[in-house]
Amino acid sequence: MSKSLRVGVVGAGAMGADHIDRINNRTSGAHISAIIEPDAARAAAAAEDAPGAQAFTRIEDAIAADAVDAVLIAVPGQFHEPVLVPALEAGLPILCEKPLTPDSESSLRIVELEQKLDKPHIQVGFMRRFDPEYNNLRKLVESGEAGELLMLRGLHRNPSVGESYTQSMLITDSVVHEFDVIPWLAGSRVVSVEVKYPKTSSLAHSGLKEPILVIMELENGVLVDVEMNVNIQFGYQVATEAVFEKGLARIGQPSGMQRWRDGEFLINEHTDFTTRFATAYDRQIQSWVDAVHEGTLVAGPNAWDGYLVALSCEAGVKALDGGVIPVDAAPRPDFYA
Amino acid sequence: MSKSLRVGVVGAGAMGADHIDRINNRTSGAHISAIIEPDAARAAAAAEDAPGAQAFTRIEDAIAADAVDAVLIAVPGQFHEPVLVPALEAGLPILCEKPLTPDSESSLRIVELEQKLDKPHIQVGFMRRFDPEYNNLRKLVESGEAGELLMLRGLHRNPSVGESYTQSMLITDSVVHEFDVIPWLAGSRVVSVEVKYPKTSSLAHSGLKEPILVIMELENGVLVDVEMNVNIQFGYQVATEAVFEKGLARIGQPSGMQRWRDGEFLINEHTDFTTRFATAYDRQIQSWVDAVHEGTLVAGPNAWDGYLVALSCEAGVKALDGGVIPVDAAPRPDFYA
Amino acid sequence: MSKSLRVGVVGAGAMGADHIDRINNRTSGAHISAIIEPDAARAAAAAEDAPGAQAFTRIEDAIAADAVDAVLIAVPGQFHEPVLVPALEAGLPILCEKPLTPDSESSLRIVELEQKLDKPHIQVGFMRRFDPEYNNLRKLVESGEAGELLMLRGLHRNPSVGESYTQSMLITDSVVHEFDVIPWLAGSRVVSVEVKYPKTSSLAHSGLKEPILVIMELENGVLVDVEMNVNIQFGYQVATEAVFEKGLARIGQPSGMQRWRDGEFLINEHTDFTTRFATAYDRQIQSWVDAVHEGTLVAGPNAWDGYLVALSCEAGVKALDGGVIPVDAAPRPDFYA
Amino acid sequence: MSKSLRVGVVGAGAMGADHIDRINNRTSGAHISAIIEPDAARAAAAAEDAPGAQAFTRIEDAIAADAVDAVLIAVPGQFHEPVLVPALEAGLPILCEKPLTPDSESSLRIVELEQKLDKPHIQVGFMRRFDPEYNNLRKLVESGEAGELLMLRGLHRNPSVGESYTQSMLITDSVVHEFDVIPWLAGSRVVSVEVKYPKTSSLAHSGLKEPILVIMELENGVLVDVEMNVNIQFGYQVATEAVFEKGLARIGQPSGMQRWRDGEFLINEHTDFTTRFATAYDRQIQSWVDAVHEGTLVAGPNAWDGYLVALSCEAGVKALDGGVIPVDAAPRPDFYA
Repeated sequence: MSKSLRVGVVGAGAMGADHIDRINNRTSGAHISAIIEPDAARAAAAAEDAPGAQAFTRIEDAIAADAVDAVLIAVPGQFHEPVLVPALEAGLPILCEKPLTPDSESSLRIVELEQKLDKPHIQVGFMRRFDPEYNNLRKLVESGEAGELLMLRGLHRNPSVGESYTQSMLITDSVVHEFDVIPWLAGSRVVSVEVKYPKTSSLAHSGLKEPILVIMELENGVLVDVEMNVNIQFGYQVATEAVFEKGLARIGQPSGMQRWRDGEFLINEHTDFTTRFATAYDRQIQSWVDAVHEGTLVAGPNAWDGYLVALSCEAGVKALDGGVIPVDAAPRPDFYA
Repeated sequence: MSKSLRVGVVGAGAMGADHIDRINNRTSGAHISAIIEPDAARAAAAAEDAPGAQAFTRIEDAIAADAVDAVLIAVPGQFHEPVLVPALEAGLPILCEKPLTPDSESSLRIVELEQKLDKPHIQVGFMRRFDPEYNNLRKLVESGEAGELLMLRGLHRNPSVGESYTQSMLITDSVVHEFDVIPWLAGSRVVSVEVKYPKTSSLAHSGLKEPILVIMELENGVLVDVEMNVNIQFGYQVATEAVFEKGLARIGQPSGMQRWRDGEFLINEHTDFTTRFATAYDRQIQSWVDAVHEGTLVAGPNAWDGYLVALSCEAGVKALDGGVIPVDAAPRPDFYA
Repeated sequence: MSKSLRVGVVGAGAMGADHIDRINNRTSGAHISAIIEPDAARAAAAAEDAPGAQAFTRIEDAIAADAVDAVLIAVPGQFHEPVLVPALEAGLPILCEKPLTPDSESSLRIVELEQKLDKPHIQVGFMRRFDPEYNNLRKLVESGEAGELLMLRGLHRNPSVGESYTQSMLITDSVVHEFDVIPWLAGSRVVSVEVKYPKTSSLAHSGLKEPILVIMELENGVLVDVEMNVNIQFGYQVATEAVFEKGLARIGQPSGMQRWRDGEFLINEHTDFTTRFATAYDRQIQSWVDAVHEGTLVAGPNAWDGYLVALSCEAGVKALDGGVIPVDAAPRPDFYA
Repeated sequence: MSKSLRVGVVGAGAMGADHIDRINNRTSGAHISAIIEPDAARAAAAAEDAPGAQAFTRIEDAIAADAVDAVLIAVPGQFHEPVLVPALEAGLPILCEKPLTPDSESSLRIVELEQKLDKPHIQVGFMRRFDPEYNNLRKLVESGEAGELLMLRGLHRNPSVGESYTQSMLITDSVVHEFDVIPWLAGSRVVSVEVKYPKTSSLAHSGLKEPILVIMELENGVLVDVEMNVNIQFGYQVATEAVFEKGLARIGQPSGMQRWRDGEFLINEHTDFTTRFATAYDRQIQSWVDAVHEGTLVAGPNAWDGYLVALSCEAGVKALDGGVIPVDAAPRPDFYA
């Protein structure tokens, strides 16, 4: 039995608390050794679920105290860079919740800093890559047994969002997941983004014009259209239909107990991402912990992937105002091959 | 274009009215030429949907008036024999709603009378044989592609029944359909019937002990268990699961528009037999009309099948009191081969 | 019983032969009284299935001989106008297979000619409007119970097409159905059409660049994206997903017998339109025959609908070369209200 | 962070090796500290996956060496008692793979021995209780929202079995799971067992007469019929349909990626229990480890449940020869309340 990995969680909000529970209670080979959180109340609440963990207000202090073997960043995206830099400089493995950083310029800075190390140390928390259905679909693409992939038709639906959810967050908070998982599924990067407007839902708050239809072209010719919808009311649904030359595959159909009641046959649908992607979150963390133990450090999307997503998001935000917006990326450095 | 078949309907209750509509408005090559109904109010109501049809109170009068080419019997089972006899004696083709007659003794009398004609003239209204799903299942049995059929697991569920529905009607009114369709599916007759009692539904009226589980053995060794349930509340459901040596088939799953609403994925289930078996009823009548035009006269279960069902029902009613009740039938006459 | 409607079929190719069988063997209140077909071999073959029908080479002769009460046109679209004109001038009810005519100019001529009659006499054969699932979806839109309709996401997939199937036929032969049924579902006409190209299937013949994604805007703001795919190999599939403010509905999922075999759960998919739309074709014809008997003459899409579809097709063909192509229609005349 | 639980695995065959992997790589708060296995080759193979674990040939030695905090028994059932006795005498928490012991007499001895401790220490490895679908079904029963449970209709199908699988193993190796999970679902113990024989599969080896239909009556009146089938070829399937007064629920339908191929819509079915019950096995062990940390020691079926299952198995084996066999159990001691 190898030594249990000492993980420091940066940020003890909802997402951080969820990761603390996951690492301490459902993950093999790791435990929470430090909670880095400036808000005292949050830190105290989190500490109750992490007996023995030390409390810090700054990542630098946790590093100086040699309190962590690895870092899990769960603060909002705009605070990622100031945590990533010292953690990278300390040579620590990092699991960074999405996005890597909020824009491509700062992402590029991180990518450049990371390349001073011997190998990639950052894994970005795009957990869909660990979802069993997305994995089965990717295997089908790679197998070639249905012929070439021609088109992907996706949808991402949330029950509702609050007033603080802005128009650009449709892209940066929600479609951001598609910008990571679609190229991974199709084996090709995004080269342009376009947005179309269906009839606007009267249930969206006044500042929001949605749903939107996001159209992406990939470098290999695959066309993608994704419905992004944050007020669908009925539940939480993420699904993709893949059109191949010789057949079709669809993921995201609800499963589980079938019932008959009141003239209807029914199956429960998810109502938020925590159940839809429960397995994905657990597998993401276990895979990362295993990769750190094995020395590969990264078991999923890396910082370069995070940079590409930032580029797509910038194009997507521009596309909200109309037009087909190109996504131009530098070639992938060998460091991230 | 051959001459339109003049059909006389005997009985203008709900079932008769439904057949009048079907024959006049959805069937090719036939029309209602006579309504035989002693109740004047019913006869008048039915006449409105059958312009040009003559009204009679007795089948003998319709025959004497040469008003019909064929007869469709839709009165309750206990009144079938007095209609069947003159219709047979007149040599008319007959579609007789199930059951042929209420007991095996009277069924045998009909079977003997019919054998004085050149060929079978009676088709019994077990419409499940015309349901597309039952037909696909039967084709799978016959094809042998899934290996030998070993077992059939069935269910027949109604939303509710009134006080007039008695314990023995579980057998004679409901399981009666299984006694016809199961041997047809499996290619082998029923040799014994047994009844088991699950916990009794508190929603059944006080005179009713149900659901019941009916177990049948077929001559070829196939075992059948059928849940018969007349107070399931949620809808109307008839389904069968067939266990083969190398696989499995199931019919009766709801289909149609899929919806998502209030955290649920749902499909409408049937709420009564008129929609579940709409296609079966239409095809049954069209097939019968076609068979009469072609001179084969019968396109489905014949009077001998009706006699076998009567025997099974008698065993089933006995089995309500316990024990494994054998079903002994004489060999099928060549006339019905 | 009203007099059986004497229907003259114009064109005895595959579609005509299918309608002859339908009217003579599965339709109440009508029969084929005339086959209008210049090709002698085809006419003779068709005559075998239509005993008693007279043979003509020109519609004018059938009219002159008073051989028909109504006309069903099943010749290719470019030959519709020369049949429609004399039939309209004779005041006959007409069921015209889609399209009304191949272009909006000729469609407009027909629409103008028809307005000289007392009421619309032409029904166009867009049979999807008679499909039970499309009807259920339309009822859901009209009910408002899921909130406003925001978006429709469709797909139309064929197993394969021959060399004679050209690029523009993707629009005029296939998407043409969407141009009729989508406005009917959404209650609003098409105002623009755009085409996007996914990766091209290597299984399409060399002259064909497909699948395509067709994007339509409707006057009420509903956005529509339809995948049109004629080389999907696996089967025939037509489906639509409707996005409402408060929920979701999907039609087109395969149904029927469920099987388990070789590690898989499976349901047969359709392999061509004859089974997918069997009920729709039958109901279309029965409804039309009933409407003629009742004197309303038209029970589905009328000539004005046919003209609008022609306009959309013209925009769609232009859109194959790029751009968002507007669809401008004159206001609907009161005659067609 | 509490101290990692030191688990000794008794038996390093397929099941033991699977548990070693699970505890070391997918379980939080525990690790394999000892492998107790007399076969040197097996022990050596297992040791490679359990770095740092000590090797023993007898449980007594592992206890004497203070090498374990808890014991997981994965040897065949006939060897359970000689491991259970010293482990109980040492006061260790135990997870014992099913069955507790092979017969009710020895199970009773264990139950009596265990009662000398302060509380139950044995959890029996009936992992179905940890399957999400079984749990959802149980919640539905307990909620009462569908009315009283009346009947359960189950099935357990394996692709095939070897020559060493005997007739009585249908009961003791396979139906044994139903004897545990059905009373747990229905909240009532088994009072009788009966076996019916469908047509025998020609694919079963010559010593085997199967499938069988097992009928159980529960104390609360619920009737259960379970198809037990070990040569179904197509896959591995465990499912249950629950009939309530006001509705119906079914678990066990395959889920995951939907595909369309070769005229068929399909979903992969399981082919063995390792994928069907992957989540159940993982949750079972994590729950047990958590219970040991919390001091409750048992988080699932206890030794008394194991004794009741042994009684049902004895009745089931007798029932293979015919008749309705009663299951008589002493009242549950307060110790197991």
